[in-house]
Amino acid sequence: MNERLIFLTNDDGVGARGLARLIEVLRPFGHIVVVAPDGARSGMSHAITMNAPLFLRKLRDEPGLEVYACSGTPVDCVKMALDHLLVDRRVDLICSGINHGSNAAINVLYSGTMGAAIEGGFYNVPSIGFSLDDHSLDADFEAAGLVAAEIVSRILDARPATPLCLNVNVPKVRPEDFKGIRVCRQCRGHWREDFFRRQNPLGHEYFWLTGAFKNAEPDATDTDEWALAHGYASVVPIQVDLTDHARLETLGGVLDR
Amino acid sequence: MNERLIFLTNDDGVGARGLARLIEVLRPFGHIVVVAPDGARSGMSHAITMNAPLFLRKLRDEPGLEVYACSGTPVDCVKMALDHLLVDRRVDLICSGINHGSNAAINVLYSGTMGAAIEGGFYNVPSIGFSLDDHSLDADFEAAGLVAAEIVSRILDARPATPLCLNVNVPKVRPEDFKGIRVCRQCRGHWREDFFRRQNPLGHEYFWLTGAFKNAEPDATDTDEWALAHGYASVVPIQVDLTDHARLETLGGVLDR
Repeated sequence: MNERLIFLTNDDGVGARGLARLIEVLRPFGHIVVVAPDGARSGMSHAITMNAPLFLRKLRDEPGLEVYACSGTPVDCVKMALDHLLVDRRVDLICSGINHGSNAAINVLYSGTMGAAIEGGFYNVPSIGFSLDDHSLDADFEAAGLVAAEIVSRILDARPATPLCLNVNVPKVRPEDFKGIRVCRQCRGHWREDFFRRQNPLGHEYFWLTGAFKNAEPDATDTDEWALAHGYASVVPIQVDLTDHARLETLGGVLDR
Repeated sequence: MNERLIFLTNDDGVGARGLARLIEVLRPFGHIVVVAPDGARSGMSHAITMNAPLFLRKLRDEPGLEVYACSGTPVDCVKMALDHLLVDRRVDLICSGINHGSNAAINVLYSGTMGAAIEGGFYNVPSIGFSLDDHSLDADFEAAGLVAAEIVSRILDARPATPLCLNVNVPKVRPEDFKGIRVCRQCRGHWREDFFRRQNPLGHEYFWLTGAFKNAEPDATDTDEWALAHGYASVVPIQVDLTDHARLETLGGVLDR
């Protein structure tokens, strides 16, 4: 028998509780290899480390589980795993998370969790990013773990065509209040920042980002934001062609020469 | 008369030659405000700084030109400018670049230049990322500057509907060998890494990313990669709905419950 190999990463760092929960619920599905950042890398998007060396350190090696810490970004972790550490082994599934905080709607663009999941999709292995709609350090990952296990089980059984990348977000609910899983589309909207301003002890002003999400279609019922707000886990299939195909022709009239 | 206000940023840092060239060619179009990273931030994608304070420092203030350095990422620079520094002023155009290196094809996802341009598009102002297909420090920005000026002129005249974000890439050619401007779509493909491995003086192994781009459609003639390879500047209109709409239905059959 060929045991499955499942690669995990995240953006909250190798010690994060969301990752521990993901390891726990996915161990029954196969051999787990984790390469995760050596500290928090939230908001790192699809960033890669171009101007610094990367270090990789083995933290655990036990039956069914290997854990490594990497000094880079979440996307670096995926590249280190798939193009170096596991380059001679067949990887059956890539998962990222479980993130502390929602990555629904336009958050997919800022998210290190989803940066890693999207990069994973480039290796022709089903790749899934999991996030819980709760930023707090003591967030309850009970329901999110159950959702992750169920989605992984269905994807491993159904073997959908690759490349496949899913953005899964789980509402902040107890398992008994969970409504179900909905495949949906990314909600339109954007963030506006209200900078928090203070002075440091030297008298220099500094700023922190403190934004708010503006939902551009609060009444649409087929979006990830709607699903989350109504107790469902949202699943958005992800593609990476950013071309605005509808505008090619009119812009050609303005710019081609 | 209301002078135009043009906001500029980049990912190579406030001192980069590509930014200097962009300032030079765009000054005739209006008042320029630059907020750019205080050092190189290549490969930062759409990253934001969540766990550290941001500092903003004025470097120049002269007729027609204000320049600030920001301690954050390219996207942080856009947010600092549009939601803080310029919040009471009407911005007419946002440009990012000129980047040292191509951001065609899937590079759009890793690029700090394009992260900033995409963020700029969220402010309902035409937003354009410019990149030159030449990484070298002494790259020749002559042609790229002319292309930037021409595209900016046409966009300011045509006033296309917003949100509008363009990914412009300029080939490494002398102005006399430049073939023209082509609106095209993002080429499919991905990177594979061949890690460069060395040992540091303490005997610890370290790695550098040294990837190669695999073009998945080298024969297609309507892509940005084709345009660049044939002496044209490529212009790809950008949208940010990552939903793979074609897969919603079949995945719903597998996952909805």
